[in-house]
Amino acid sequence: MRKLLVIGIGAGNPDFMTVQAIDALNKADVFFVFDKGEPKGDLVRLRKDVCERFIRDRPYRFVSIEDPVRDPLPHGYKQGVRDWHRERALRLASQIAAEIDEDGCGAFLVWGDPSLYDSTLRLLDILRTDTSLAFDHDVIPGISAVQVLAARHRLVLNTIGGTVAVTTGRELAEHGFPGDADSIVVMLDRGDGLRAALREDVDIYWGAYLGTPNEILLSGRLRDIIDDIEQIRACEKDRHGWIMDTYLLRRTRAG
Amino acid sequence: MRKLLVIGIGAGNPDFMTVQAIDALNKADVFFVFDKGEPKGDLVRLRKDVCERFIRDRPYRFVSIEDPVRDPLPHGYKQGVRDWHRERALRLASQIAAEIDEDGCGAFLVWGDPSLYDSTLRLLDILRTDTSLAFDHDVIPGISAVQVLAARHRLVLNTIGGTVAVTTGRELAEHGFPGDADSIVVMLDRGDGLRAALREDVDIYWGAYLGTPNEILLSGRLRDIIDDIEQIRACEKDRHGWIMDTYLLRRTRAG
Repeated sequence: MRKLLVIGIGAGNPDFMTVQAIDALNKADVFFVFDKGEPKGDLVRLRKDVCERFIRDRPYRFVSIEDPVRDPLPHGYKQGVRDWHRERALRLASQIAAEIDEDGCGAFLVWGDPSLYDSTLRLLDILRTDTSLAFDHDVIPGISAVQVLAARHRLVLNTIGGTVAVTTGRELAEHGFPGDADSIVVMLDRGDGLRAALREDVDIYWGAYLGTPNEILLSGRLRDIIDDIEQIRACEKDRHGWIMDTYLLRRTRAG
Repeated sequence: MRKLLVIGIGAGNPDFMTVQAIDALNKADVFFVFDKGEPKGDLVRLRKDVCERFIRDRPYRFVSIEDPVRDPLPHGYKQGVRDWHRERALRLASQIAAEIDEDGCGAFLVWGDPSLYDSTLRLLDILRTDTSLAFDHDVIPGISAVQVLAARHRLVLNTIGGTVAVTTGRELAEHGFPGDADSIVVMLDRGDGLRAALREDVDIYWGAYLGTPNEILLSGRLRDIIDDIEQIRACEKDRHGWIMDTYLLRRTRAG
């Protein structure tokens, strides 16, 4: 049976690789990479660096899968994402069949952790239900950007006994600050989440390019530093061609 | 300046150790362990195993700090926890001063990740503000039980674009299912959280002793399997003297 490994490689720093992830790397014959045609060459390069550093004298190859263009909201956001996943899954099925022997092993190197805002596992679920491709798969957890953010700010994410919500910039912009949580971690924000958060009096612990040599950290009362953050975001995005940032919001008086 | 390292060692499996955590282990002269006088000897032993396996030919020692007894809710739960943290911090300050040279390095090995429901970083904050002990500290993230749960069930924690709430059994029992999240991860449940979750029609992905050889996984509709889970919890707690379980709840129809 074909084996597929979904390997979390951690966010940014190759030193976040776990012993388990290193062992998994050394089992794979083929690494699949989705080519998003974006200027995120840095992220592809980091995956190759990880392989070069940790794979011990063993042949392996990278196979690039061209990403279908994501139709901008034809049937609403969620349906759009689902259609896109299905299209990617079909492309992936034919590549897997062509590239991996019946008893071979393929792998996906997932930035951060495969369990948080990553579509690889959804793709494999679609492969399993909608195609005849036979495979088994394992998941190797990795250090997520959320954890790197907390570590670099030396923070506990939760207040004592409190709830932590992990959400997206889009959700925050559309639905506001979740009522039940006093700590909110925001990922995948294009900027509108940050603006929406201004409606509340919150502290922010912000980080961009977490774990990488370009890492930037900032913290303070959101209303005092939002202009700085927005300026840095624009400036750095210009410089690198992309930005990935993550932040924790906490109601200013929450313990 | 004294250096303190707060090292996430991952949940259960020593193979969750990251390269960064292994490097950090190899810098510490002293490892501090809180002795809770509980039958959780397994957890202390796992810390020692991690050191034996990953520390390369370098002297180190373990220092046990007797945990103050936690006063059961004298001024409410949160105040009780705060008082307890302060008491622990004072004991810790004198041990650090006695055990670590001015330019030495001490470490805390935190089960899972230091940023989630762990008090080590709060203790260091108290040390910094309330004592004259001079030190610098770094945090090394680790694979949390939440991530191991997701990996073992091969799950993405969030629904597409949705919010994930991470909370405690106590919070769930007191405040019910958070309104904004369709995915709820519950930690530190003594059993009342699970019962409270029955008020909603949810699927559960449950795991105990995650990452260890004793790991148990179960999933299904909560109302169908809650009896099984409760029976296993009681039985295994009896067998091992302790149980640590974590679970994801998801509204049954959420995508």
